[in-house]
Amino acid sequence: MNRKLTSTSRRAFLRGSAAMAAGGLAGAAGANGADPLITETQDWAIYTGAGVDETPYGLPIRFEEDVVRRNVEWLTASPISSINFTPIHALDGTITPQGCAFERHHSGAIELRKEDYRLMINGLVATPLVFDYTDIERFPRENHVYFCECAANTGMEWAGAQLNGVQFTHGMIHNMEYTGVPLRTLLNEAGLGAAGDLADKWVYVEGADASSNGRSIPMEKALDDVLVAFKANGEALRMEHGYPVRLVVPGWEGNMWVKWLRRIEVTDMAVGSREETSKYTDVYEDGTARKWTWVMDAKSVITSPSPQSPVRHGHGPMVISGLAWSGHGQITRVDVSRDGGMSWETARLGKQGDSKALTRFYLDTTWSGEEMLLQSRAMDETGYVQPTKTQLREQRGENSVYHNNCIQTWYVNAEGVAENVEVS
Amino acid sequence: MNRKLTSTSRRAFLRGSAAMAAGGLAGAAGANGADPLITETQDWAIYTGAGVDETPYGLPIRFEEDVVRRNVEWLTASPISSINFTPIHALDGTITPQGCAFERHHSGAIELRKEDYRLMINGLVATPLVFDYTDIERFPRENHVYFCECAANTGMEWAGAQLNGVQFTHGMIHNMEYTGVPLRTLLNEAGLGAAGDLADKWVYVEGADASSNGRSIPMEKALDDVLVAFKANGEALRMEHGYPVRLVVPGWEGNMWVKWLRRIEVTDMAVGSREETSKYTDVYEDGTARKWTWVMDAKSVITSPSPQSPVRHGHGPMVISGLAWSGHGQITRVDVSRDGGMSWETARLGKQGDSKALTRFYLDTTWSGEEMLLQSRAMDETGYVQPTKTQLREQRGENSVYHNNCIQTWYVNAEGVAENVEVS
Repeated sequence: MNRKLTSTSRRAFLRGSAAMAAGGLAGAAGANGADPLITETQDWAIYTGAGVDETPYGLPIRFEEDVVRRNVEWLTASPISSINFTPIHALDGTITPQGCAFERHHSGAIELRKEDYRLMINGLVATPLVFDYTDIERFPRENHVYFCECAANTGMEWAGAQLNGVQFTHGMIHNMEYTGVPLRTLLNEAGLGAAGDLADKWVYVEGADASSNGRSIPMEKALDDVLVAFKANGEALRMEHGYPVRLVVPGWEGNMWVKWLRRIEVTDMAVGSREETSKYTDVYEDGTARKWTWVMDAKSVITSPSPQSPVRHGHGPMVISGLAWSGHGQITRVDVSRDGGMSWETARLGKQGDSKALTRFYLDTTWSGEEMLLQSRAMDETGYVQPTKTQLREQRGENSVYHNNCIQTWYVNAEGVAENVEVS
Repeated sequence: MNRKLTSTSRRAFLRGSAAMAAGGLAGAAGANGADPLITETQDWAIYTGAGVDETPYGLPIRFEEDVVRRNVEWLTASPISSINFTPIHALDGTITPQGCAFERHHSGAIELRKEDYRLMINGLVATPLVFDYTDIERFPRENHVYFCECAANTGMEWAGAQLNGVQFTHGMIHNMEYTGVPLRTLLNEAGLGAAGDLADKWVYVEGADASSNGRSIPMEKALDDVLVAFKANGEALRMEHGYPVRLVVPGWEGNMWVKWLRRIEVTDMAVGSREETSKYTDVYEDGTARKWTWVMDAKSVITSPSPQSPVRHGHGPMVISGLAWSGHGQITRVDVSRDGGMSWETARLGKQGDSKALTRFYLDTTWSGEEMLLQSRAMDETGYVQPTKTQLREQRGENSVYHNNCIQTWYVNAEGVAENVEVS
């Protein structure tokens, strides 16, 4: 078989390109000649490339150097007590690589060796215990993919369309495969029987960093699906994600996923710590507050096209893609609107069945350069439907920065450039 | 509520530690005094840690710097045409981070910009086509987790127990969530009708690197689950994994997963390229060869304890963990033996249901310092049972370096140190 490129096949490329253009797909070769990138031999097909032993831990290729976590300078006073955002506009599928997964620290990320790691369980237990890292590894462990979303994700948008990029409006989220020991296993090891009726009991969890970031978790949740996790996406947690051990509280706000987990106290009441009173509390217009807003309600957003990810191709076939998630369980359906919510089409889910994990959705469609007001609307297994911003404001006012799960709108112009807007 | 550490609770730690020791778990605090790592305030609980904006792309903490791909110097002549191995002894769960996922190049890893990327479909199609990168993004895409295993994985072990670490015996494998366009979609775009009866047709796939690494794939597989992939674990493929586009051939040997995918030709016969004749062919003792050994049969291995991952704790509770996979579909069961295959216990699967993907297994057990001959044995949905090394040698001889999926044995001594051994 002749593997050489013949002039006959060169002509075929041109026909092929023409056919694609007619069918709506822009061919790579122009109408006036062959595309040298496919018809001519390139340097990379002649010379050898890089060897295997040059990068101890592999990094993305330099052409992707803009796909990184970013922060918003005006949003935070200091990098020590700050946040950054996952570049979800540039990702696909569902897994977030640790290297670009958002971070939020309350007193900076601390460096804690496994050898120095201790976890104490105390309070209303029969036998207070202190575990070291190797102890944790001796209990039966599980693997689960879960999303972790900061309660303040999309928080700036309560005040209107503020941040022109889905990385900044929705990027305080990541989705990883965690390996860890169920918290209930460790609590039972310490003897929960001593706590009496568990229905009204709590655990108070805190980290080893200076902020300690203490949070109260009702016992029902603690005994359900909470994990004491030591791996994410197969490898050790990054320092910034709580190395060597963090708490994973599936479906609940990220602030409760305590990093550098140091202590778990069984208590008979919620502690009312700083992080669950003056912070991470949704305040209504009248100054009263929503109580116990732990679960992240169903939410979705279109990641492409979006302000940082404009349409890069001509008219014709187009994939609209985004992410949906619910702290209550599985995403059952996502609808997409191109006219600001007047009409809806049901999207295709990339993979179904994951609970409290990111779900990728796609709308395989065509585009002829018409202006669009793109929206997505998620539904979860409880029947809950993601609300509009108007509906959410009617319920909650605009006093809070937390728990904004409203429908997001992108305006896409005739050139395919997208912008963060609000529709009433 | 008083959050201070009282002397009463200090005494409780000691009781706790004693109770743990009695129950088989070594407490962190010694019998003679409190553990200052939990009873005294540490520096990291006083001072602020690192801010968020210091690492553009996040890397593992420095304490994990030994968890990297490694090569074996005597195994390969040159780093350009070489391999390295995933540190599976140090990972858990199922996902392999791209940064430590093994690499195999045939003429080095090439740097190819998205703008320079072209994919040609030619041969027995109605309309030969050339796609650029943005064209690929316009077709409906899918997300799937699949393992990629080099045909030569475990290849050195045909000759006996050679490499003292699971990273080196079984580390030519990774498992990632791929996003890509089904190959069938692109073939149909080019018009497969022109190929006549598809039952005896093939596709010949090649890469843009100098080796081109051409391989023939029967049309039935090409139309089944093969993906033209551009993301792995959510982000762009690393350069070394074929940026910007590689072929994903689920369950089939890694050499067919062509990187820097350049051309797909529809043919009426297998091409018989270098990579499918003189290489990647299993030769019997008599010099004849097994034909079309594409599928990676069911296989498993214990990753901990293993030579690079000795038992790090005392007697009592112990988790034995490992990986299982099958190119034919789902793993249905994994058994573990501690006596070199005389008796078996059924392991717990970390997560079931993934097809042609790594499955994590655990045996939650206890250890009293007895010597062990650890083995694992995988079964898949076809009923196939992973063979012993003796069974495999009887079938295949020892002439090949490919497709060694036999049961692996680790000898674990009374100190918990493991060694690669063979049992007859």
